Amino acid sequence: MDMQLGMIGLGRMGSNMVRRLMRSGQHQCVVFDFNAAARRALEQEGARAAESLDELVERLAPPRAVWLMVPAGAVDGVLHELTPHLSADDIVIDGGNSYYVDALRRAEELGLKGIHYLDVGTSGGVWGLERGYCLMIGGPEQTARSLDPIFKTLAPGRAAAPRTPGRKQAGGTAEEGYLYCGPSGAGHFVKMVHNGIEYGVMAAYAEGLNILHRANVGKKEAAVNAETTPLAHPERYRYDFALADVTEVWRRGSVIGSWLLDLTASALLDQPDLSGYTGHVADSGEGRWTALAAIEEGVPAPVLCAALHQRFASRGNDEFAAKVLSAMRHQFGGHVEHGE
Amino acid sequence: MDMQLGMIGLGRMGSNMVRRLMRSGQHQCVVFDFNAAARRALEQEGARAAESLDELVERLAPPRAVWLMVPAGAVDGVLHELTPHLSADDIVIDGGNSYYVDALRRAEELGLKGIHYLDVGTSGGVWGLERGYCLMIGGPEQTARSLDPIFKTLAPGRAAAPRTPGRKQAGGTAEEGYLYCGPSGAGHFVKMVHNGIEYGVMAAYAEGLNILHRANVGKKEAAVNAETTPLAHPERYRYDFALADVTEVWRRGSVIGSWLLDLTASALLDQPDLSGYTGHVADSGEGRWTALAAIEEGVPAPVLCAALHQRFASRGNDEFAAKVLSAMRHQFGGHVEHGE
Amino acid sequence: MDMQLGMIGLGRMGSNMVRRLMRSGQHQCVVFDFNAAARRALEQEGARAAESLDELVERLAPPRAVWLMVPAGAVDGVLHELTPHLSADDIVIDGGNSYYVDALRRAEELGLKGIHYLDVGTSGGVWGLERGYCLMIGGPEQTARSLDPIFKTLAPGRAAAPRTPGRKQAGGTAEEGYLYCGPSGAGHFVKMVHNGIEYGVMAAYAEGLNILHRANVGKKEAAVNAETTPLAHPERYRYDFALADVTEVWRRGSVIGSWLLDLTASALLDQPDLSGYTGHVADSGEGRWTALAAIEEGVPAPVLCAALHQRFASRGNDEFAAKVLSAMRHQFGGHVEHGE
Amino acid sequence: MDMQLGMIGLGRMGSNMVRRLMRSGQHQCVVFDFNAAARRALEQEGARAAESLDELVERLAPPRAVWLMVPAGAVDGVLHELTPHLSADDIVIDGGNSYYVDALRRAEELGLKGIHYLDVGTSGGVWGLERGYCLMIGGPEQTARSLDPIFKTLAPGRAAAPRTPGRKQAGGTAEEGYLYCGPSGAGHFVKMVHNGIEYGVMAAYAEGLNILHRANVGKKEAAVNAETTPLAHPERYRYDFALADVTEVWRRGSVIGSWLLDLTASALLDQPDLSGYTGHVADSGEGRWTALAAIEEGVPAPVLCAALHQRFASRGNDEFAAKVLSAMRHQFGGHVEHGE
Repeated sequence: MDMQLGMIGLGRMGSNMVRRLMRSGQHQCVVFDFNAAARRALEQEGARAAESLDELVERLAPPRAVWLMVPAGAVDGVLHELTPHLSADDIVIDGGNSYYVDALRRAEELGLKGIHYLDVGTSGGVWGLERGYCLMIGGPEQTARSLDPIFKTLAPGRAAAPRTPGRKQAGGTAEEGYLYCGPSGAGHFVKMVHNGIEYGVMAAYAEGLNILHRANVGKKEAAVNAETTPLAHPERYRYDFALADVTEVWRRGSVIGSWLLDLTASALLDQPDLSGYTGHVADSGEGRWTALAAIEEGVPAPVLCAALHQRFASRGNDEFAAKVLSAMRHQFGGHVEHGE
Repeated sequence: MDMQLGMIGLGRMGSNMVRRLMRSGQHQCVVFDFNAAARRALEQEGARAAESLDELVERLAPPRAVWLMVPAGAVDGVLHELTPHLSADDIVIDGGNSYYVDALRRAEELGLKGIHYLDVGTSGGVWGLERGYCLMIGGPEQTARSLDPIFKTLAPGRAAAPRTPGRKQAGGTAEEGYLYCGPSGAGHFVKMVHNGIEYGVMAAYAEGLNILHRANVGKKEAAVNAETTPLAHPERYRYDFALADVTEVWRRGSVIGSWLLDLTASALLDQPDLSGYTGHVADSGEGRWTALAAIEEGVPAPVLCAALHQRFASRGNDEFAAKVLSAMRHQFGGHVEHGE
Repeated sequence: MDMQLGMIGLGRMGSNMVRRLMRSGQHQCVVFDFNAAARRALEQEGARAAESLDELVERLAPPRAVWLMVPAGAVDGVLHELTPHLSADDIVIDGGNSYYVDALRRAEELGLKGIHYLDVGTSGGVWGLERGYCLMIGGPEQTARSLDPIFKTLAPGRAAAPRTPGRKQAGGTAEEGYLYCGPSGAGHFVKMVHNGIEYGVMAAYAEGLNILHRANVGKKEAAVNAETTPLAHPERYRYDFALADVTEVWRRGSVIGSWLLDLTASALLDQPDLSGYTGHVADSGEGRWTALAAIEEGVPAPVLCAALHQRFASRGNDEFAAKVLSAMRHQFGGHVEHGE
Repeated sequence: MDMQLGMIGLGRMGSNMVRRLMRSGQHQCVVFDFNAAARRALEQEGARAAESLDELVERLAPPRAVWLMVPAGAVDGVLHELTPHLSADDIVIDGGNSYYVDALRRAEELGLKGIHYLDVGTSGGVWGLERGYCLMIGGPEQTARSLDPIFKTLAPGRAAAPRTPGRKQAGGTAEEGYLYCGPSGAGHFVKMVHNGIEYGVMAAYAEGLNILHRANVGKKEAAVNAETTPLAHPERYRYDFALADVTEVWRRGSVIGSWLLDLTASALLDQPDLSGYTGHVADSGEGRWTALAAIEEGVPAPVLCAALHQRFASRGNDEFAAKVLSAMRHQFGGHVEHGE
């Protein structure tokens, strides 16, 4: 079934989603971005570019479906400009990394005008064009169902993974790679937790690789001051591991095989010492929101939270705390700091 | 090239490894287990069963290769019985979950007799027969090389995962699913860290799913005592997520796709509430040893350690600490405990 | 200087604060509680009890000072009833465990009517009557200053602790045990972090004592299943520590002496095995809010957060996550759960 | 009762302990240090200095008591030199920060020669001379009892802290500030856990103070790249807290009053921004050993371990892990690192 979709926001994610929709030959895309060059680029690939939000709405036949793929902080601004042009029964989809609590509010606000709002958590990154996008959908079920052909085209499809035993009988769209998760906010809630898990999984690999990376400390001259514990058994830490090979071998047959491991193996093959990176790791809102949700629910999430706080520390935000520790040690024991 | 291998220990792992070797049609296996039934079972599938360690050694042509696939705690006992029957240049392989520090000692002890010792971390679980085993090998490089045909057959092979870009030029056996990691202990060291990572990855999924599981707390009647923080926004926690579907949808196109996620989706499809489990989670030595290595190296591993300690708590070992907290609260604030 | 204070909320905290003010002989207290018995009790000790909020306001000479010592969840309700009776230049003090963000809002709302609002974090628990209350004050500085005599009486006074070297020159009221911390919200912010620290300190003692408590595991018969790591050196864990004595000895001369340790020593002396407690540990809002503040500021606080999540787990909220782990282990390794 | 004690090791701790013993007028000290200047210094204060270990032993009347106050790594070397000069029934005390497992071994080795060995965890730092030393004693009970007068003089004494209610009836020496904890290793075990707790308590303060320190982030210009979560409510983070005052006010009447807080208040008064410290925090063996003990006992200690790992990170040992995270983010999302 042919469908028409308006896409606002033509960054890495939005433009590739349009490309995937167009490639299918089943859908027509009208696109807009405040950046004219981004509009032109997609126009040359066959999309119809609108020069304004107004024009984008005009070019879509009602009831319209308009997908926002803009930074979380820009959604309300775009909605403020876009909404006056929309009519009752139009659908707005927020596919960005918005806080699910905002989805609750927006669904209510737009609902007053008869506009339907879907929050669609979208995972896939720069790889989504080829692999497809994993879609987690929240909002009115009927509305979600009406966009099924769009979701199906964007999603990776069943062939993207081996079938889970017994899944055939269970039915549903999950194994197509898109899922109606529940009422407003449910899509972004599931995406939020997805990203929270991502932080934990990434940290697990990173810490493990760091332990392998330092497994040669027994070869180094030990510090000789009283402030540092000497290594009890240096002979146990004299390994020089080739991490590109180690991550490669784990990709086959091991319990920890994953797509993130595939990427890690690739990165380490390119640059074994990762010297091109500073190690200042950003954190998007979703890792933080997951931690907040855990706290509000009273659910212990020590691993996810440790992963989040580790990122804060990677940016040097632990410095004052560390100075407090040094100051205490100096006070009670006369300890003077040493470098390592 | 045809090879001969003696296998000691015919549990879930050892017996399936023998089956995989035999299926290849390239290798001959002589097997032994202290349990006669286990010996018989494999004999009926075509292996040659020895009735004693002595006989196993006799049936192998020197230089022999004997693979131990027994619990970590049983390795020294088996070696004690086995070694007198072996000759110089024979090879002993420990494929179990042994502490890598023991490998250092054993390699030295056996080396005095001219016997070569390999420590081979083996991942694959009950799925290894079909998927192949991921092998992490430590010991003398020459010895490791001499067993290449065995390792190649046990390993999953290159086709088991898409090729990492640029890998072809890099060469080596890692993409076959087996890897020479370094001198004695290196194989079990890498396997140890592998399992440490596994703990962290598992915990990340488990915590995230728990946050989804409790996302309906806003529907419940709030506790009315002063000891419990009321939920500030119950309207934000009224979701009933179908976790079997959520984990299924994440398997395609998402950043957190992994083999562990595949298994989780399968487990949740079988039993959505996991009511068949008590949640008393065991921990093998390797998670602990990873934590010890991190501490000895001075490498921060807060996520891996949180995952480990969480397992201790799952078995109730946090109880006394919690009572201390309650006692303190009672002392300073007159707080009386409430259930939840 | 004599002052007059209205106190609303005569629970453990509020009634003892009134007692401390009355004992000083310098202040006059008009008190109210929705519970008549609580009013009567204090009236018999010399306070003037009002039968309604209206009457409480009437009995105070303007400009009035009304202190609220009610649960965080009740503050807005009381303010809603109280405010219409107040006049411009009256002062409302919230001394409870309110979220500092609410103080920002309330100060603004009351400010529209010319009413001054102070947020005063109050620590001291059931011991405050004798020891005095540590007061952390936020709001307009002039307003805070006008209540100095009240704060001074409630606070412990300089003699409550040895003088910090150089403190005399620094001046200020901090060493009296009360402090103007900054504009609206500052008082409850500081109190919030105080309680966050408290969680961490309590957890440190609790975990350490648990390690001592289990230091006799080497005496026990080891589990004999393959799912549990046997203790490598049982001979190292054969101590039966008398925790009441250990905590007592730490109270003198050690680095970890503290008031919380004093209370712990007392609790363990009363009941060495703490069998009267279940170990279901509540958490008030402030531990949670501290964690939220850390996350919003991007400040790593792994210890404080671990302490918070530990309390969640103490109430069984980790159960579903643990079942997910067990289900994964069963899937990949055929592991069956064992009790401990 | 007059006693005689040999002291080996005249650093900060050992020399002050000798001074405290001499000041009491009850004990005679023979001292030795490999550093001659250290010997001379104490000799001028009235101690009898020996020029060699041999001479030290000679000058003591049997049965002798020789106290070692040397770095953990030096104990075995000193014992190797000292032991040949000792006789059966002499007593050796290790008062340093040794691993309790070494005490088990040393007690056994010395026991073969009839020499009694005590492991005495000693807390007090540079303040012990005035405050007294908290002593945690392990070894044969009879031996420990024979040195009671020495311990009593070194310890702070009952007056150093208010009496715990009901303590009088309980009896024992704990409230004097020294305690017989159990057989060999028990003293150092208790001291080890003491230091583990210390790490956790210190971290709790440090993290809390860091949250206060950064409570002005809402005043700063927000970063404008897509990689950083903007602060949702900058108006909530506009506080400039005077931390020297905040820590001072907490010293009186609050729940978190402690000796470590006293020291922190003092350090912050001296230098409010702690700019004299780098924040590279060392960790002695005992924090690590506590973590190992927790793991071996299977006791969850997430707070103590987070505190330990935080110190590792303070020395930059988290860097490679952080680079792995950045590399992963670059791979899956095209994310480029930004500074903060």
